[in-house]
Amino acid sequence: MEQVSINRSHGGVQGVYSHASFATGTQMTFSVFVPDHPEGARLPVVWYLSGLTCTHANVTEKAEFRAACVDLGLIFVAPDTSPRGTGVPDDSEGAYDFGLGAGFYVDATEEPFAGTYRMWSYVTRELPDLIAANFPADPGRQSIIGHSMGGHGALTIGLTYPDRYKAVSAFSPIVAPSQVPWGRKALAGYLGTDEAAWRAHDAVSLIEDGARVPALLIDQGASDQFLTEQLRPELIEQAAHDAGIDLTLNMREGYDHSYFFISTFMGEQLRWHAARLAP
Amino acid sequence: MEQVSINRSHGGVQGVYSHASFATGTQMTFSVFVPDHPEGARLPVVWYLSGLTCTHANVTEKAEFRAACVDLGLIFVAPDTSPRGTGVPDDSEGAYDFGLGAGFYVDATEEPFAGTYRMWSYVTRELPDLIAANFPADPGRQSIIGHSMGGHGALTIGLTYPDRYKAVSAFSPIVAPSQVPWGRKALAGYLGTDEAAWRAHDAVSLIEDGARVPALLIDQGASDQFLTEQLRPELIEQAAHDAGIDLTLNMREGYDHSYFFISTFMGEQLRWHAARLAP
Repeated sequence: MEQVSINRSHGGVQGVYSHASFATGTQMTFSVFVPDHPEGARLPVVWYLSGLTCTHANVTEKAEFRAACVDLGLIFVAPDTSPRGTGVPDDSEGAYDFGLGAGFYVDATEEPFAGTYRMWSYVTRELPDLIAANFPADPGRQSIIGHSMGGHGALTIGLTYPDRYKAVSAFSPIVAPSQVPWGRKALAGYLGTDEAAWRAHDAVSLIEDGARVPALLIDQGASDQFLTEQLRPELIEQAAHDAGIDLTLNMREGYDHSYFFISTFMGEQLRWHAARLAP
Repeated sequence: MEQVSINRSHGGVQGVYSHASFATGTQMTFSVFVPDHPEGARLPVVWYLSGLTCTHANVTEKAEFRAACVDLGLIFVAPDTSPRGTGVPDDSEGAYDFGLGAGFYVDATEEPFAGTYRMWSYVTRELPDLIAANFPADPGRQSIIGHSMGGHGALTIGLTYPDRYKAVSAFSPIVAPSQVPWGRKALAGYLGTDEAAWRAHDAVSLIEDGARVPALLIDQGASDQFLTEQLRPELIEQAAHDAGIDLTLNMREGYDHSYFFISTFMGEQLRWHAARLAP
């Protein structure tokens, strides 16, 4: 693991790191914020999965999470959204919603993506081990947040590993990729056209198939340009209701899909996480 | 004035605007954040001048000012750092510290810069009029902050118009451009080699020549890579002491020159401003 940059901020250390990933076979970059802490302490870890076109940098620069992480004693980890580099295949037409910057947090089974687009393994297995080995992290206290495509990742990962992630929340998530254009394109491209294989990567399908978490928190901008076609929070509202999952869905009047929205409610989401990460 | 973008954030509206400037003869872009406020209210205005290489965008995306501005009821205005566009001359070698992105908040008298590099007039006359005419601003309650080159701008403008700017502060400012490489290059390039003309654009010289403000606040990272060669806060510490100006100089251990530093102490600086902007 190589240190790309280190900046003191808000009473902690914001780092960016790079490493050769065995999951993706590429060099991967991620950011980690560690609040100042007593020597020997182990802090809970909040994972943040980013949306389409983003790298670790967008959330690291714009999301205003550091003050709350220092107050609450939380490590904050932000991975990239896809493998990158020479030889990594992209969307055949270079579209923003598939390929580079659009890994959708799955392990691709379709060629030419199967060898490198392994973001599920990267985010749920390889990177947690790296974080546990190199930072003052408590692997017994982890939680997960995501935005948009990353909200999809946070929900599907959180629903799959409810014992590991003590809190699961999202900003403007894609809740039912099987039912919306972004998701159908991505799941078909990475997993093939047999939709049965998509259910493990669709939060609404996972809930329908029996996955459970005690609670979910979603903040959604009411003026989000992607609300009605791509995000459709009413689908997870219905699924959570039917399954008896305690979903808090905050529709935020006037807010859009941007980090101007995320930064506004980041502190609230982190406080919700911290309450569930208490020892 | 044309609206480039509008995003709701933190209980206010973050806008970016563009207009044909008569001061620079170019199209200029700036950002304004306006907290929600009662109809008809007029809010105090905090000006923020950015540093080398920056546009309005760096501070707007990274400086974490919006939550504090909403709490305190402050409008926050961020201009660009130079004229831009076809025909605007740049540093002859394209250096980052002169020309585009490096206007140093002076009205250039040297060719080929004299026609367009008029950032003093732009920031102190044209843009305040535009803000007063188009936003719920109280022109009787203004204050000014800047970073690095923009700290130089904030200090020189604040010292020149002490009645207009009720509070003057800076992050990592260039306090004595006449005495450091960045400043000597810029002042010679824009104002010519007669150093007498530089004194009106050097905070330490202005204080030596009798300019006064009741108080100054400076936050400076102790690990700032530019500290000893370009910034030299001890020079304004001495000048303020000799002049009886109440300077608070906070040396911040471990912090550097970046927005990771600025965002950490922005709330504190804005509270200091708000106390001085109270009706």
